[in-house]
Amino acid sequence: MRWRSSGRESKGSDVLTREVWIASGTQLVTDLTATIADFCRDLGDGLLNVFVPHATAGVAVIEIGSGSEHDLQATIDRLWPPDVPYSHRHGSPGHGRDHVLPAFVAPSLVLPVVGGRLALGTWQSVVLVDSNGDNPERRVRLTFVPG
Amino acid sequence: MRWRSSGRESKGSDVLTREVWIASGTQLVTDLTATIADFCRDLGDGLLNVFVPHATAGVAVIEIGSGSEHDLQATIDRLWPPDVPYSHRHGSPGHGRDHVLPAFVAPSLVLPVVGGRLALGTWQSVVLVDSNGDNPERRVRLTFVPG
Amino acid sequence: MRWRSSGRESKGSDVLTREVWIASGTQLVTDLTATIADFCRDLGDGLLNVFVPHATAGVAVIEIGSGSEHDLQATIDRLWPPDVPYSHRHGSPGHGRDHVLPAFVAPSLVLPVVGGRLALGTWQSVVLVDSNGDNPERRVRLTFVPG
Repeated sequence: MRWRSSGRESKGSDVLTREVWIASGTQLVTDLTATIADFCRDLGDGLLNVFVPHATAGVAVIEIGSGSEHDLQATIDRLWPPDVPYSHRHGSPGHGRDHVLPAFVAPSLVLPVVGGRLALGTWQSVVLVDSNGDNPERRVRLTFVPG
Repeated sequence: MRWRSSGRESKGSDVLTREVWIASGTQLVTDLTATIADFCRDLGDGLLNVFVPHATAGVAVIEIGSGSEHDLQATIDRLWPPDVPYSHRHGSPGHGRDHVLPAFVAPSLVLPVVGGRLALGTWQSVVLVDSNGDNPERRVRLTFVPG
Repeated sequence: MRWRSSGRESKGSDVLTREVWIASGTQLVTDLTATIADFCRDLGDGLLNVFVPHATAGVAVIEIGSGSEHDLQATIDRLWPPDVPYSHRHGSPGHGRDHVLPAFVAPSLVLPVVGGRLALGTWQSVVLVDSNGDNPERRVRLTFVPG
């Protein structure tokens, strides 16, 4: 995964915040786990916020690599079909759906960090959920608050 | 938007927490962005929690002003119709639905604050999602944790 | 509710993090409120993160004891039926559904703590939402960040 830091590290503060660019391509699910784990390394204990500053994307914690990415796409297309009528008419067809989905798959997530490691379960990955294929790159802001 | 502070500012601590009243009326979506931005001003860097202490409301980050409020209402009425049978029978008809929705549109949200400003994307607003029209006023607790 | 601490308390830090075991049985909803309230007692003001390190469970804030547990089960079975075809084929039948649900009922939640008490509303409880009946015990990590 390609990423560029576009960040600002706080000075004289224990908060560390940085915005990274993610090559999200056109697929629904993009794995963010390694990027986030790199950011947390050596940061000790605390809470990490993953925030996507886009109105048509969210963040989730799911298992990947065993078919759930495909199941998530099928579920979203079944429950939030792009072709029902939407009031929001900007952008590509189906863009109205992309604007509703973040109410249910929120663009913000908090993860515990213990000893500089994400305290994820064995089968959990942190993923961008982006039903809007028009944006091959997305920004993600990572913010760490230690004790 | 009318709001009253009902807060408690922590003494001798870096945590700042305050409860505000929001005039949410009878509509589904109420914009909280300006209220939250006011709270964060001059607070530096950190994480802000927006928490709604009500069992029939949630918080979301969506674009507003381009039709998505209406699309969200239509989506909720389609997927969580008020008129399917519910076990929960207190309150007005359809109130059972209002009690299920917060499992999917949670009453808690964390936002990054950088230099006293909410680090939202251009098209993002923070909104109360309240399918329960019986309460024209709602409380929202804002809690800031700096570094 | 039975629970065992399996924790690690940070040394020389203001962060307190601990993993507890929850007897979640086979039901969808397990109340975590008392366990979390115990953890927060005497911790002052700050934010608490509730994180479930499992790929088939989530956390929610709902009213319990008035039928909403049953309504949540009915809603999940209606919108995310276990018997539609899923790509994910590990585990018991319907396990594909269990892996999709955490994208919508996330395994992470942040709660405000004021004076050592969870600042929940009168009718709110914090619950584990676990559609996967194969695991009668679940781990939950509690992490507190004070000011």
